[in-house]
Amino acid sequence: MIVYENILRHPGPTPIPKKVQLAMNQDIFSHRSQEFVELYRETTELVKPIFGTTQEILLLPSGGTAALEAAAVNTVAAGEEVVVITVGAFGDYFVSICEQYGFHVHKLAKEWGQACTAEELREFLQPLNNIKAVFVTYNETSTGILNPVAELAQVIRQETDALVIVDGVSCIGGAPAEMDAWGIDILVTGSQKAMMLPPGLSLVSVSERAWKVIEENQTPSYYLNLLSYRSWAEKGMTPNTPAITLIYGLHEVCKLIEQEGGFAQTVARHALMKDMVRSAMKALNIEPLTEDQYASPTITAIKTPQGIDLGEFLTRLKQHYHVDFAGGLGHLQGQIFRFGHMGYCFPSDILQAVSLMEAALKDFSYDFEPGAGVVAAQQVFLAAQQKA
Amino acid sequence: MIVYENILRHPGPTPIPKKVQLAMNQDIFSHRSQEFVELYRETTELVKPIFGTTQEILLLPSGGTAALEAAAVNTVAAGEEVVVITVGAFGDYFVSICEQYGFHVHKLAKEWGQACTAEELREFLQPLNNIKAVFVTYNETSTGILNPVAELAQVIRQETDALVIVDGVSCIGGAPAEMDAWGIDILVTGSQKAMMLPPGLSLVSVSERAWKVIEENQTPSYYLNLLSYRSWAEKGMTPNTPAITLIYGLHEVCKLIEQEGGFAQTVARHALMKDMVRSAMKALNIEPLTEDQYASPTITAIKTPQGIDLGEFLTRLKQHYHVDFAGGLGHLQGQIFRFGHMGYCFPSDILQAVSLMEAALKDFSYDFEPGAGVVAAQQVFLAAQQKA
Repeated sequence: MIVYENILRHPGPTPIPKKVQLAMNQDIFSHRSQEFVELYRETTELVKPIFGTTQEILLLPSGGTAALEAAAVNTVAAGEEVVVITVGAFGDYFVSICEQYGFHVHKLAKEWGQACTAEELREFLQPLNNIKAVFVTYNETSTGILNPVAELAQVIRQETDALVIVDGVSCIGGAPAEMDAWGIDILVTGSQKAMMLPPGLSLVSVSERAWKVIEENQTPSYYLNLLSYRSWAEKGMTPNTPAITLIYGLHEVCKLIEQEGGFAQTVARHALMKDMVRSAMKALNIEPLTEDQYASPTITAIKTPQGIDLGEFLTRLKQHYHVDFAGGLGHLQGQIFRFGHMGYCFPSDILQAVSLMEAALKDFSYDFEPGAGVVAAQQVFLAAQQKA
Repeated sequence: MIVYENILRHPGPTPIPKKVQLAMNQDIFSHRSQEFVELYRETTELVKPIFGTTQEILLLPSGGTAALEAAAVNTVAAGEEVVVITVGAFGDYFVSICEQYGFHVHKLAKEWGQACTAEELREFLQPLNNIKAVFVTYNETSTGILNPVAELAQVIRQETDALVIVDGVSCIGGAPAEMDAWGIDILVTGSQKAMMLPPGLSLVSVSERAWKVIEENQTPSYYLNLLSYRSWAEKGMTPNTPAITLIYGLHEVCKLIEQEGGFAQTVARHALMKDMVRSAMKALNIEPLTEDQYASPTITAIKTPQGIDLGEFLTRLKQHYHVDFAGGLGHLQGQIFRFGHMGYCFPSDILQAVSLMEAALKDFSYDFEPGAGVVAAQQVFLAAQQKA
């Protein structure tokens, strides 16, 4: 059977809504024109509630990794001490970035699949002095953990003078974020995850406190110099040619979120989809990797169904049922797969993907009651509708 | 009078062909899939003739500035000596990047509007020793100068052991490039100029000789680490999420160039458009900033027509005739305007833009023979057709 499109259920890059695609097809114009200034100002204003900030949103023409690097290199100098909380592959990324620049890294590493709790962080920080920044992954894409970033930020503020630098790449746009209220100093995300855009744009916001540190710091980078982005942002522009089409798209994304009823609704939809996926898996006797308490609203890591060869299962799903889940990373390769449910993804998509997963389970003679996963997801969906 | 679209005659970002736009609207898929590997390999193969190289083409999800920075930071360490040839604003950019990283910069600066000749470079290099790299702007966007990069590269190879690092951002895709034959070590371009794509992708190619230097160099950057791009390119992938939609688009751009009859035809079209613009301006007694010998095939800088207020003239052209030229940069602001003729631009577009310029000149009571510019451009166009 042929289909026209595969169903992409990856934790990024993710599908693009048609309205966003159309918006990105508008004519190119100069990034030094009044039209651009208006687009830039209006768009960044619309993004602020998604970050939970009144600070400027800086738009970098780059992947999320570059924005993480910008957060590090603009605030910390070689030899200075930092803490990196790592609960998976993308936390380890942050460690690599810090090491690349010669920071003295204190690594708070958790087993993959677990979150870092406020108590653990407090204990870790107490013997340390002179920590310049603490780097936290909000949503760990490799394991589907949502770290309790509000609590972690509070502990950091209580125990240290360090900046709170948060990687929000794989959840901002689908998870609650109150940058200002939670005391986050730098919050970073990318376009290609819950923000419903193609890859190539990253978004960065910086607190007053962090700007003061950045002003004192010698940034050994030209492209990623945040002071340069700030001074151009005051004019409604960017220091170099911006990713204009993605900014058009971002503007439309914000409009879609408005149409949904505001960002709180978008967050609620993601929480609902997470619950639907987890209920479905449990009803099929398939185990999520993580505990409910710290489960990501944007991606669920799922252990291999008993007795099934994971590689063959994912291949069957992709080639025969045209639904594409992501495999595991690092040492979890072969042990888990990852079900992305973020951005342009709705409860109906969860019902569809779970149905197709059941079909493939049947092909592999997995022992389950047909429909059990779908019914469980439906129940969560219906219950949420009754509440609303 | 209202029009549906402004005509963008800027030196980048530039208009996008509809076929390229359509290609960029294909479905997003995973950058770790076989589909991506095929797209990546096929696309980078197609780009090689445009660079004139058999080396791998690396694709960075970034603006051109980041790629220039990558070329610098991967090859040279702080304190090492470099030469930067600067003939305008973008050469000065290269100086800033090198200074940001603490290189010892020897600056060969020319008056804006002039090229750097092989003789001048030879003289400049002769007293110097231990030069690690020479940075050359191939096409200076601020002045419309095409430096004689083949000759400059030859001089660098004869006089030094330095790497030849070339900024091709505003001409690659519209100017001849023989990276291998000319002895260029690193050639860099961006997507949003002659490559007919939106901003957000940069292309980098590196010689064997330069890879050896890069392997020995400690790169103080994570995102821009070229060794990491190389090792992933061997697998047909990129180290982090690539600008997938722009790679789709790049594939289509290469196909369009094939359809044009191969890259030599594309280069010939650009040379023709340059000649058309220059002939038209001269027929109107309006002076190009640069001499014919070093005139850029992608952008022509033009001095303000006698007796006209440039700001008002450009505003009139944009708001009334809907054709958008770029102003001057730096100290040339108010003295020149810049007529972009690259990428998705054809001789018919030159005839159109010159016609509209004549209309605006009439509005400002400029003294000229109506039609003189258009006729001059037509003659160049007709002569080229007879030769073909």
